[in-house]
Amino acid sequence: MGKITVVGIGPGNLDEMTPKARRAIEEADTIAGYNTYIKLIEPLLEGKKVIGTGMMQEIDRCRAAAEEAKDKNVAVVSSGDAGVYGMAGLVLEITQAMPEDTRPSVEVAAGVSALSAAAAVLGAPLMHDFAVISLSDLLTEWTTIEKRLRAAAEADFVTVIYNPKSKKRADNIKKAAEIMLRHKSPDTPVGIVTAAGREGERKVISDLAHFTGEEITMFSLVIIGNSKTYVKEGRMITPRGYENKEQL
Amino acid sequence: MGKITVVGIGPGNLDEMTPKARRAIEEADTIAGYNTYIKLIEPLLEGKKVIGTGMMQEIDRCRAAAEEAKDKNVAVVSSGDAGVYGMAGLVLEITQAMPEDTRPSVEVAAGVSALSAAAAVLGAPLMHDFAVISLSDLLTEWTTIEKRLRAAAEADFVTVIYNPKSKKRADNIKKAAEIMLRHKSPDTPVGIVTAAGREGERKVISDLAHFTGEEITMFSLVIIGNSKTYVKEGRMITPRGYENKEQL
Repeated sequence: MGKITVVGIGPGNLDEMTPKARRAIEEADTIAGYNTYIKLIEPLLEGKKVIGTGMMQEIDRCRAAAEEAKDKNVAVVSSGDAGVYGMAGLVLEITQAMPEDTRPSVEVAAGVSALSAAAAVLGAPLMHDFAVISLSDLLTEWTTIEKRLRAAAEADFVTVIYNPKSKKRADNIKKAAEIMLRHKSPDTPVGIVTAAGREGERKVISDLAHFTGEEITMFSLVIIGNSKTYVKEGRMITPRGYENKEQL
Repeated sequence: MGKITVVGIGPGNLDEMTPKARRAIEEADTIAGYNTYIKLIEPLLEGKKVIGTGMMQEIDRCRAAAEEAKDKNVAVVSSGDAGVYGMAGLVLEITQAMPEDTRPSVEVAAGVSALSAAAAVLGAPLMHDFAVISLSDLLTEWTTIEKRLRAAAEADFVTVIYNPKSKKRADNIKKAAEIMLRHKSPDTPVGIVTAAGREGERKVISDLAHFTGEEITMFSLVIIGNSKTYVKEGRMITPRGYENKEQL
């Protein structure tokens, strides 16, 4: 019987992929993943079978990978960390539904997540408690997303927004910012990082009052500060709280 | 002028450290970090000056690193990701307070965070929105921590608990579980991962009703599911929601 390793490739450059993840890809017979991410690891794919499909076909892609893994070594790749809104869950769900005699083993190789990559570009916004919320309402009711945005804002979490915008839901990020503004100060810093760790990486630091979301693409992550977050010399910093104990 | 790279070394084995992080350590003249983490990267330290101190001396250690970096290349290491409750913030705060003519440049090299490492060990608990909360009340009022635990439970976030236990605050995790129980079902899965990715790694999967926290040490991370999280064949899985659209 074969196996599947669900691999987090990190932000997308080989320099930020762990040796464990890289080896899982190099040793695999077959690689499955969203085309955009397959392209990022092209140097590692020579001689391998590739199951690449467009967005929105996650289930079919995972099923094909599981079928392949009955007698082969397969790597299913996610950008960032496969364990954060990645393919780890779907691969486990689909393989656990297979009959035991053909079921491949599954391992997850963690990667540098998009939230870690974006935080590093911005400075140090995640030094204190944070909430991570996806604005994609394809698989989640918008009312649930709204409830979580409200809870995060009310309890003064730093808030990390995944999937802030797509063609079909360009306005969700504006609605999210409005909800945040009801509970957070207008001068709360907002960091937008696009293509972190990849060609064309860029960051914009703004605040809730001036936030328009124009710079946001499908490859952006947005981090909204807590009540103590500040911006200094282009870095977004959420203090851990040492200054309560001692003058820095 | 010198520079500081704040390096996330990942869970603690060289196989899960990014090449970028490794290179930052290899190219540094001086390494600063908590002794426990310094030990994990010992193979990389030959011929380097090491500023290692015990816990609770973060500020002094960062100051010494900043002083050193006036004319040297310094790496300040954090386990996991330096950008998640790590040293990135303190290094930026301390260097930004230095006079410009001696101030080193600062870069953050992201790592595989403890939450990503623990999630990979447990299965796929972070496929949906999650809150990350530290139970350390050394630098944060307990009332703030409680408010965030309550908000995370009420809004049905998966909840990741950092610093669940130390000698001085062995009971915080029990209080946290009690708060969770007021809003979450008693059969909500709870995963405890200790020393993820290191020698002696172990996991325990329990639920809120049976959770005692006995297995927890200073090197544990706790992940509490949302209302949809389930355990199957030893894996803790939070469904992304595909099953709402299609039978898996």
